[in-house]
Amino acid sequence: MKIALLGYGTVGRSLDELLKRRDLNIEVKRILRRNKDPKDSRVTDSIDDILQDEEIVCVAEALSGREPADSYLKMIMESGKHVVSANKAAIASDFEGLLKLAGKMGTTFLFEASSGGTIPWIENIKEIRETDEIVSLKGILNGTCNFIIDKMEREGIEFEDALRTAQSLGYAEADPTADIGGHDTYNKALISCSLAYNGFVKKDFPVLGMEKLTRDMLKELEAEGKTVRFMMLSERSGDRYAVGVAPMVVRKDSIEANVRQNFNCASLTGVTVGELKFYGQGSGGYPTADAMVRDLVRVRDKKTEPDILEKKLVYDDSLIEGVGYFPFGKKRGLLSELIVEARKKDVFMAFEHEEDNEVNA
Amino acid sequence: MKIALLGYGTVGRSLDELLKRRDLNIEVKRILRRNKDPKDSRVTDSIDDILQDEEIVCVAEALSGREPADSYLKMIMESGKHVVSANKAAIASDFEGLLKLAGKMGTTFLFEASSGGTIPWIENIKEIRETDEIVSLKGILNGTCNFIIDKMEREGIEFEDALRTAQSLGYAEADPTADIGGHDTYNKALISCSLAYNGFVKKDFPVLGMEKLTRDMLKELEAEGKTVRFMMLSERSGDRYAVGVAPMVVRKDSIEANVRQNFNCASLTGVTVGELKFYGQGSGGYPTADAMVRDLVRVRDKKTEPDILEKKLVYDDSLIEGVGYFPFGKKRGLLSELIVEARKKDVFMAFEHEEDNEVNA
Repeated sequence: MKIALLGYGTVGRSLDELLKRRDLNIEVKRILRRNKDPKDSRVTDSIDDILQDEEIVCVAEALSGREPADSYLKMIMESGKHVVSANKAAIASDFEGLLKLAGKMGTTFLFEASSGGTIPWIENIKEIRETDEIVSLKGILNGTCNFIIDKMEREGIEFEDALRTAQSLGYAEADPTADIGGHDTYNKALISCSLAYNGFVKKDFPVLGMEKLTRDMLKELEAEGKTVRFMMLSERSGDRYAVGVAPMVVRKDSIEANVRQNFNCASLTGVTVGELKFYGQGSGGYPTADAMVRDLVRVRDKKTEPDILEKKLVYDDSLIEGVGYFPFGKKRGLLSELIVEARKKDVFMAFEHEEDNEVNA
Repeated sequence: MKIALLGYGTVGRSLDELLKRRDLNIEVKRILRRNKDPKDSRVTDSIDDILQDEEIVCVAEALSGREPADSYLKMIMESGKHVVSANKAAIASDFEGLLKLAGKMGTTFLFEASSGGTIPWIENIKEIRETDEIVSLKGILNGTCNFIIDKMEREGIEFEDALRTAQSLGYAEADPTADIGGHDTYNKALISCSLAYNGFVKKDFPVLGMEKLTRDMLKELEAEGKTVRFMMLSERSGDRYAVGVAPMVVRKDSIEANVRQNFNCASLTGVTVGELKFYGQGSGGYPTADAMVRDLVRVRDKKTEPDILEKKLVYDDSLIEGVGYFPFGKKRGLLSELIVEARKKDVFMAFEHEEDNEVNA
């Protein structure tokens, strides 16, 4: 199978190398990148070279940011080629449009690498959804945030210092806003919840960043046997659902509190299967590229079906109630209301979903 | 699709009910059970009624114990029907024979429910194995053992008392030997490692039960920030591998130490994907039956390929080295040697694989 690759950053380069190294019968015929590489005849700076190449069956998109990726994805689908993408920002910006276009064109559109890095999260959601009803999703889906909190916790340092270390080690971007402000987790939550609940979730669900987390807040929580993880949280009941992204209070003896460094851990709860958790590398060139390779193998083997999300879901924020931990004390309320309050007062807030924090005894 | 069900214990009954409740186009036409139920015309006590029924495409086997299940599985394959089994004892007793017969007959043979209960462990091993090289497997694969250790740890009670509670709650059998002696974990390790390493592992790898675990041992470990989990552990390097089942020493801040009650958690490490962990209910009627339903849907949709394990693997116990914690102190050595010593002296031993217990900093 001949494919094209869009983008040649860490993930694109790793994907190219993995495909060269492995005997999967998948060949990168063209590479779209801004700077032409005179030594690599596959490289082009024109998307048309790829769209018009009839030998290219599938395009692997490893660009970053919403545009031009979103437009490219649609142009590729319209050209009748299959698509594998790692780009959560582009996918989340018009998930409904992309899935519907893929359905209309009969093209396969896979995006395992977009959410949870190398963790087989998307595929397992699809698998479980087929036979069970998924009633809750939650998870640590951003490795940068987790690295920072883990560092603050272990070394007793402040946010800014942990962020600087993350940047110097390459775990955080020079501009870390998308990670620590929650937008990256928001994108992954939008994609995951829509798939799990079989309908498109609304775009303006509540998000609170973790920029205002302090060492003192972690110390206070530690005295209660708790800590913070930056997570998405979502509940569903029939056609009603709620979803939010915020710092969450978790017990020290929970699985989540023991997810270290830049690892991710995502959970789904089904009526029959109960709670399943999936843990692994949520970022990094090779792990992310590996998830793309698995998707490419699915395209090669034609082992996929279109995702048709058919339910009309109704947002109901009363589904997520708990306790907000503010610098000035605790307050019971809905996640959505507590996030509004934290934003208005411009303070830190971590949300405790008590159901999750009961002692399992 | 019409199927037959072998066995009508907790899992068989749950499977029957799930299939009735869900609109999956899978109908249980016959049920094999010892005691005929006059109210259910599907019930038979003769395997021939099932083998000779040409409408039955697939048989779901939820018997317990090795025989007659193993013979039935082979008879079903020979009759040209597909097989879904939850029976680790029967499968592990002749895994090679069963896979080869399935391959020869062209029948689909799936067994997700045999290892890790409802956790999509087997499918994810197959998925990752297709593109990456799996170099290690480990995991908590027995809910009964985990329930007992967790109980001892939290309540500071002795093994016998925790076992009695597990029995009264239905988490342990009246005869708990297969669980606490390690045979159940052994079966799951044999199946998982063979699949992951793409070759049949030898049948007589080292196993040590956890019957001799004491409250004092847990207290001593706690002082070091550690505890015990009953696990399989396996390493592979090229065509060499080692595998063992024993009580393992894990750090309190590891994921495994925070797996509570009767939950399971299994990990695989691939060269490219790194470490992936899968957590969920390892037993129970509905969760286990749900894994069988997923397999039945795969058979229904013909979405499977035969498992052909082609590598000749060489057992090399030098691949697993660490520290044995005995009642009389610690001792460095190979897992296999330390197990032999514990058996000879008839004492408890828990193995610390130091690689796993390094501080991730």
